[in-house]
Amino acid sequence: MSEESQELGITESKSHRPGEWYAEVVQKAGLADYAPMGGFIVTKPRGYALWEGVQDALDGWFKETGVDNVYFPLFIPESYLEREKDVVEGFDPEVAWVTQGGHNELEERLAVRPTSESIIAPFMADWVRSHRDLPLRLNQWCSVVRWEATDTKPFFRTKEFLWQEGHTAHETHQDAWEEVWTRLEQYERLYTDVLAIPVLKGKKPEHDKFPGADTTTTVECLMPDGKSVQGGTSHHLGQSFADAFDITFVDEDETERTAHTASWGVSWRALGALIMTHSDDQGLVLPPTIAPTQVAIVPIWQEDTEEQVLSYASEVAEELEAAGVRVVLDDRDGRNPGFKFNEHELEGVPLRIEIGPNEATDDELTLVHRPDSEKLVVDREGAADTVQEHLDTVYAKLYAAAEETLEANVRTAESAEEIMGTIGRHGGYVKVPWCGDEACEAVIKEKVAAEIVMQPLAEESPETDGEPESPADPDATCPICGDPADQIAYFARTY
Amino acid sequence: MSEESQELGITESKSHRPGEWYAEVVQKAGLADYAPMGGFIVTKPRGYALWEGVQDALDGWFKETGVDNVYFPLFIPESYLEREKDVVEGFDPEVAWVTQGGHNELEERLAVRPTSESIIAPFMADWVRSHRDLPLRLNQWCSVVRWEATDTKPFFRTKEFLWQEGHTAHETHQDAWEEVWTRLEQYERLYTDVLAIPVLKGKKPEHDKFPGADTTTTVECLMPDGKSVQGGTSHHLGQSFADAFDITFVDEDETERTAHTASWGVSWRALGALIMTHSDDQGLVLPPTIAPTQVAIVPIWQEDTEEQVLSYASEVAEELEAAGVRVVLDDRDGRNPGFKFNEHELEGVPLRIEIGPNEATDDELTLVHRPDSEKLVVDREGAADTVQEHLDTVYAKLYAAAEETLEANVRTAESAEEIMGTIGRHGGYVKVPWCGDEACEAVIKEKVAAEIVMQPLAEESPETDGEPESPADPDATCPICGDPADQIAYFARTY
Repeated sequence: MSEESQELGITESKSHRPGEWYAEVVQKAGLADYAPMGGFIVTKPRGYALWEGVQDALDGWFKETGVDNVYFPLFIPESYLEREKDVVEGFDPEVAWVTQGGHNELEERLAVRPTSESIIAPFMADWVRSHRDLPLRLNQWCSVVRWEATDTKPFFRTKEFLWQEGHTAHETHQDAWEEVWTRLEQYERLYTDVLAIPVLKGKKPEHDKFPGADTTTTVECLMPDGKSVQGGTSHHLGQSFADAFDITFVDEDETERTAHTASWGVSWRALGALIMTHSDDQGLVLPPTIAPTQVAIVPIWQEDTEEQVLSYASEVAEELEAAGVRVVLDDRDGRNPGFKFNEHELEGVPLRIEIGPNEATDDELTLVHRPDSEKLVVDREGAADTVQEHLDTVYAKLYAAAEETLEANVRTAESAEEIMGTIGRHGGYVKVPWCGDEACEAVIKEKVAAEIVMQPLAEESPETDGEPESPADPDATCPICGDPADQIAYFARTY
Repeated sequence: MSEESQELGITESKSHRPGEWYAEVVQKAGLADYAPMGGFIVTKPRGYALWEGVQDALDGWFKETGVDNVYFPLFIPESYLEREKDVVEGFDPEVAWVTQGGHNELEERLAVRPTSESIIAPFMADWVRSHRDLPLRLNQWCSVVRWEATDTKPFFRTKEFLWQEGHTAHETHQDAWEEVWTRLEQYERLYTDVLAIPVLKGKKPEHDKFPGADTTTTVECLMPDGKSVQGGTSHHLGQSFADAFDITFVDEDETERTAHTASWGVSWRALGALIMTHSDDQGLVLPPTIAPTQVAIVPIWQEDTEEQVLSYASEVAEELEAAGVRVVLDDRDGRNPGFKFNEHELEGVPLRIEIGPNEATDDELTLVHRPDSEKLVVDREGAADTVQEHLDTVYAKLYAAAEETLEANVRTAESAEEIMGTIGRHGGYVKVPWCGDEACEAVIKEKVAAEIVMQPLAEESPETDGEPESPADPDATCPICGDPADQIAYFARTY
């Protein structure tokens, strides 16, 4: 980061102008820039490193659980997209069309993939012959393009975005459920164990599921501005895609059967949630799990203490590095410690170690936690263990704060007016019994732009077919229409 | 792989019909399929795993040497591509054009990136202000599209291909040279240490360098059919791009200076070279370094020996796995050992371990090397070390065979006729003194479609500015025109 922009620091306020604040953090912490075409961004080194952190975590878990990575073409012929329309009415994504190749008009338009079902499914049909070929679990890490975004919000709303899309085929309906739960749990683990964000896990209401799906499950994260972010989805597709694309197999009894399929995806929106959840008016805040730099050591010296301080600081840096800590020794000349503190805070380094002549003489270290500026003096002996403990503490602080926000923002309501009033005043979730009628959601949606983002599940079991949880009170009624309510719904505004 | 296709095996001959044989190996070993649009392929799990192997190796080396990964947009506005044309005359790639977004015509056509200089350079200009911001080393792993390929050859010739493109900026001309050499050496290391392919390292002749570059360096691999593959290129771009895109910096003395840039890339053509070099009429052959499965254990049992053989085989499998060997215990029922041998051979597993009642009783293992079917009986004790040694031996065999082919196929010639005759008869390289005139190359090119693919370097040093090596004989003359020759050139046919 150049000195000029560095010196500016964050000028917007997270609580007063969250949108402007978010855009400023993204740019000034060096995560992304706006591309010349509206709706596109350039992902800079520090931003891309975060995406690599998400990839490393998920990709490892995927591979441990039988998933193979593949790469399908960027383009999908229009006739392939059309074929899908027979299955999934209502899914008419706005796509970018390639119409010219070199100096020639193409005979058939090619869509830049908005998602890859329609090109992957025909190949799955070809590759699956026998029950021995199942389960077939494919995943690709790629970018997709949807010509929908109006105003650009890096990582949240862009015409091109990075994601992974998993596509799997199974012998039975229950096997596909196992898959759906496995991925949903891995997504939950990504948020809770890597991004320090608690999630609400559940299903989308029937009218809002992925087109063609039997059931769409989701992990939802609450943002500090009171809106819910869909953090990842895992779809049980039943046999609709398999029927349409002839994904069949010969079973052990020599009978030809239709497969059951699932698909699941997480996009770089996870980075948007990460940045927005933890960061503050000093800049980016990152959990140590995913921070490219976990510890910044800032030596503080005068001319007569330079040698002592710098050699002590390097020893500490080496010790930490040897223990696997991602540490930077910031011994730049011509930058005063205050400047360095600000820069590391802006960039979200979880833990700062200040080392001056006192620390060097007393064999100590001064630690500063990024999230709350808590400052502690600790013994230098056992530095690697101590630092690891403090990194864990920083993680715990971030998670606890996010959890507290989530818990404080799940409210109940007795009427449509109360649902709307609560969301209008506080944002967050309003949890109510629901009759299951989309018309009741429409009432709320129209007035306060909130919708049902999630329904908690009765049980995550391949046996239950993704049933929503019922209200504790068997006589519960829908607060909107007054009819009997046999399910629970969470209303919220969304990204 | 389904049983039907498995049973077919490879039917083409590498020596007689190398093109057909290559296509068959790619498909039957499960590496790739043809996409519905000509020029595109679908990369299947085993093919993509090879690309991940290339990525893991290079990406690690890049990061150790100061490179940051980034992600730039898939699309480049036409006006950006046009801007580049001022710099690099002659580079008019045939691109795929996006002209419609959703239901609307776009005001400006967007090129699907054929390479990203023209979108990356303006951002480099923005990010580089001071000498403190240099060197700036960016890399992205992505796909690019060039509307050029006519007939599709997986990994060698496709309209869309996967690659990495590195773009760097430096303070001095010499710093940029250091960068060029660093990357060229890493590419050489990829081929020699991971893919078991020796390379010729050198520069492209002046008339064939990357448009806009000062110097293009290359690693070239000889394929068994006698053609040379450009395995990776590293370009010293001088100041042409920096001038055109205003990549300038304020130096320590407060003077504004123009940066020096470099770019470098390797594509999945490396996989094409890998597959073509080592594989044979039984199918794919892979070096253990990159093979997704390094060892296949095939237990061979009758009803009365099943328990003994299978428990012995599992113990061996566990021991190898614990030692970090990528091992598969192929204990499938309903497949006889011969079928399994063929399948593992087709898929390129470097080492097979056969375990029958004799091995189990005598505490031994029977090892079979994939490349030459050498069969050895070894003690079971110390299996992990023994297997590792044999994997190393398999690697060494592959490398030695490829090296022998290369060494036997660098020939000299005294006249244009001899150059053409030698290439016509043997393929391979013809090494000759050269006057430096493109017209002399044209004579050869026209007649036998061979060109100068490489010129060995005098020295890989930032001091020498990429000078080609001179002939040992100071009175050497160009065999084509008879003029004095102060450089050496390698002619070959190419992919």
